[in-house]
Amino acid sequence: MGAGISPERYVQRLDRARAAVAASGAAGLLIGVGPELEWLTGYDAVGAERLNLLLIPAAGQPCYVSPRLEASAASAAPGLRGPGVAMATWEETDDPYRLAASLLPAVGGRLLLSDGLRAAFVLGLQEVLPAAEWGLASAVLAPLRRVKDPEEIALLRAAAEAADRAMERIISGPLVGRTEAAVARDVREALVDEGHDTAEFAIVAAGPNSASPHHEPSDRLIGVGEPLLLDIGGRRAGYHSDTTRTIWIGDTARNGPDAEFETIYRLTAEGQAAARAAVRPGVSFGSLDAAARDVIRAGGYGDAFIHRLGHGIGLEVHEEPYAVSGNAELTVPGNTFSCEPGIYLEGRYGVRIEDVVCCTSSGGETLNRSPRQLRVVAGR
Amino acid sequence: MGAGISPERYVQRLDRARAAVAASGAAGLLIGVGPELEWLTGYDAVGAERLNLLLIPAAGQPCYVSPRLEASAASAAPGLRGPGVAMATWEETDDPYRLAASLLPAVGGRLLLSDGLRAAFVLGLQEVLPAAEWGLASAVLAPLRRVKDPEEIALLRAAAEAADRAMERIISGPLVGRTEAAVARDVREALVDEGHDTAEFAIVAAGPNSASPHHEPSDRLIGVGEPLLLDIGGRRAGYHSDTTRTIWIGDTARNGPDAEFETIYRLTAEGQAAARAAVRPGVSFGSLDAAARDVIRAGGYGDAFIHRLGHGIGLEVHEEPYAVSGNAELTVPGNTFSCEPGIYLEGRYGVRIEDVVCCTSSGGETLNRSPRQLRVVAGR
Repeated sequence: MGAGISPERYVQRLDRARAAVAASGAAGLLIGVGPELEWLTGYDAVGAERLNLLLIPAAGQPCYVSPRLEASAASAAPGLRGPGVAMATWEETDDPYRLAASLLPAVGGRLLLSDGLRAAFVLGLQEVLPAAEWGLASAVLAPLRRVKDPEEIALLRAAAEAADRAMERIISGPLVGRTEAAVARDVREALVDEGHDTAEFAIVAAGPNSASPHHEPSDRLIGVGEPLLLDIGGRRAGYHSDTTRTIWIGDTARNGPDAEFETIYRLTAEGQAAARAAVRPGVSFGSLDAAARDVIRAGGYGDAFIHRLGHGIGLEVHEEPYAVSGNAELTVPGNTFSCEPGIYLEGRYGVRIEDVVCCTSSGGETLNRSPRQLRVVAGR
Repeated sequence: MGAGISPERYVQRLDRARAAVAASGAAGLLIGVGPELEWLTGYDAVGAERLNLLLIPAAGQPCYVSPRLEASAASAAPGLRGPGVAMATWEETDDPYRLAASLLPAVGGRLLLSDGLRAAFVLGLQEVLPAAEWGLASAVLAPLRRVKDPEEIALLRAAAEAADRAMERIISGPLVGRTEAAVARDVREALVDEGHDTAEFAIVAAGPNSASPHHEPSDRLIGVGEPLLLDIGGRRAGYHSDTTRTIWIGDTARNGPDAEFETIYRLTAEGQAAARAAVRPGVSFGSLDAAARDVIRAGGYGDAFIHRLGHGIGLEVHEEPYAVSGNAELTVPGNTFSCEPGIYLEGRYGVRIEDVVCCTSSGGETLNRSPRQLRVVAGR
């Protein structure tokens, strides 16, 4: 992975991370397999049950702890290739925690763990470093990662465009009489065909299932005279897409959307447009959530918008910053995040509309371009 | 997910887990999104940054902590549907750690965390439960999960057969002059076409790249007169496949395999066959590793077999039990694990042959059936 990111970027990022950890007063960062490692080094490691750990002490040389069988893969990563990072390998029957502890310059101090590090690794490290205090690496890395490089924005734009093409393919294809699960398989195929390296998720929720925001596609048949919610995304060169459209399946005036559905669709679309229009540098993420929520609340459906407006997106499909009520953090150019209000009426139906938006110096750029008006399709 | 597993199984598993935690002396299990949760409840949750937690106290009713927007998805899971598990939901701006702590019957005691629980959740729980001691849920769950139900074995067999079909498609297709990455995309497509719900990994390693066990498919072109290692797997109804074949690309006697490659292939195949033949109830997992390693060491390549023989497989592609040197744990019927010795000559080439094997009362049943002899293909 890391296609599109120059090797120099990784050197810069490692330097900036080291400076940030020193400024924070922590003793070091301990970064396992995951998005933080990929951001710092371009290494999309296999991970799983064998400890991989990038140690970045506040002072001194960074070191990468690798299982021996993955050492050559690790050494090939753009950010681990040069002389800047030492390599320490462990054999299948070694204790990797003692190895990691021996490489840290001093016992004690505050050590910051990558947020997704497995509990098995956390407890293993806590056991060999009983004097340390523990915190999360996001405290120093999230402020860096949330401001995307121009290359990252280009990669997110390309992923969004691939997702848009996949969405249009699904909306124009046969839907009626098929199961949600079958359409979800089509979504995954379309995401890859349209340019993603991997399909990551495909929420396909028909009729009342659309009222469950994270519905798992089931064997329910898609019918006529009901909505279909599609929330889809994949990963392309490490970066994620994430877009949602809700359509109505109908082929005559009799089985078209009812008045309440039209109302909640309109409120969701207006709320989403208001949030996107509010994006500019220096506004709080909480205020973006409020921009959408105020519209929906004024329409009488405030209690049915049961989740936050959105989440940051990049190497993770959900990452900081979060557009959630009360978040006083301010937008800066280079922030990329989803705007995805929804209205959910349990037992009946739901609507969500989601685009990825990039904050630029002059306002918000919406990376997704699929139509946002209510579309009624025959689905055959 | 969970297709093929009856709802009663989940009730049984939850009861057995509760009994096991009580017998262990721990105060409770705290299970996040992941394979343990799926095994216990059939819930393949979205997970990510919102805390989901199944609390199983040693005494008292289990409780599921869910973000509100996922509560209806959680309530639909086979193991969470009934009255046996209480449901506690939290809103986007609530503190889910305090909620979880308030639901535990008593402060203090030893709490066992699911092995893959994110560090952010571990530190969040440690903060609100400062008096607790911490351990891993695998201590009580792995001994249960490693003995597969007949339904689980049937699902693993179906996944293995789907992977075999995908493997044969790739081996018989065009390879020469294409990049490893392009063939890896074909692998992912073939895994899904042949019956997996998702493709999980596709190691495609040509020529010297085959000497790196966890090679990431690159833009290197696949040539004639060199080996190609394919390590592929996907997920079907929750259960994983994982199989490796190493072939030689050649179309004339001149560009066929050299003598040393033939030697390391033969040793790998003989070592793998010896390990599979050694499978029966009551032998140690370390002895299975030794069965393959002894053959390879006697052939003079012991130092080039740089990883363990294999890993358990089920809801996780790598899970307990591990067939690794020194593991004195004994096989029992229902254990399912990979047998995958390899010989890696850095800068030149490598060989690995991998099948999933099930320990039955009468010996080992190899679930994969692709041919294991050295195949030379034109790759056009």
